[in-house]
Amino acid sequence: MMNLCCDVVKALKGKTLATAESCTGGGIGAAITAVPGSSAVYRGGIISYCNDIKTQLLGVSVEILEHYGAVSTPTAEWMAVGARNALGADVAVSVTGLAGPSGDEYGNPVGLVYIGYADEQRVTHLKCFFEGDREVIREQTIKAALMLVLENVQRA
Amino acid sequence: MMNLCCDVVKALKGKTLATAESCTGGGIGAAITAVPGSSAVYRGGIISYCNDIKTQLLGVSVEILEHYGAVSTPTAEWMAVGARNALGADVAVSVTGLAGPSGDEYGNPVGLVYIGYADEQRVTHLKCFFEGDREVIREQTIKAALMLVLENVQRA
Repeated sequence: MMNLCCDVVKALKGKTLATAESCTGGGIGAAITAVPGSSAVYRGGIISYCNDIKTQLLGVSVEILEHYGAVSTPTAEWMAVGARNALGADVAVSVTGLAGPSGDEYGNPVGLVYIGYADEQRVTHLKCFFEGDREVIREQTIKAALMLVLENVQRA
Repeated sequence: MMNLCCDVVKALKGKTLATAESCTGGGIGAAITAVPGSSAVYRGGIISYCNDIKTQLLGVSVEILEHYGAVSTPTAEWMAVGARNALGADVAVSVTGLAGPSGDEYGNPVGLVYIGYADEQRVTHLKCFFEGDREVIREQTIKAALMLVLENVQRA
């Protein structure tokens, strides 16, 4: 994890990063800031553990949350866009998913996670399904989010 | 850590919690949300890894940041008040400190951490000094912040 975080910090080459986290609860931010010197690129994040924070602080519309649910492609992408705006960063990554022990009212299963990514040119997402307990799912989610940032930043 | 987090979730008795984190970068939120069912009390948090996020999202004034510095009693207390307001929570905890490898321009040493706490009746803080490397300081900070919440919530 530490190596991956160091790679992300390096790959950003001074571009700034913001995070918007639901099921990981701050774990991506904690992982990135474990790297000494990460303050040069990491601006901060919003932990939106309930839906109205996704709306109020990240600008995800109530309509999107009601129609698609919190664990969905549109919510993940809007969270990333919202984090980029709210935190004034070049690049943002978001996660919203079900770490368990139970699924949601839309019938989504535990382990389903959407990761959103936004930069000045692109908004995209990754749909993942992780097996394991709450801790394993959260850990896999953090890694996948960091990998998504790395891939997109290196490609830019 | 998991036991302490479970104790905090239980002690809140349905009161809601918000976090504002600087040097821990999301570690308090990640610790709390490791507890299944923490969504009943944890609303979310703001990771303010740079000063202008402390101002824009948490309402810490530029004057306070310039006069007292980011690592200070007033900043910690205002971060907690700001998190409580911005996230609409009953209780908020904040941390701002120097996890290393270097101190700040105010001459504060690595290991100095201020923890802020705010609820409907009280705003208070704890000044800590932790020895060890970056990882140890951050881990100790997360524990101390959770302990401060526990003490204040149990006393209320």
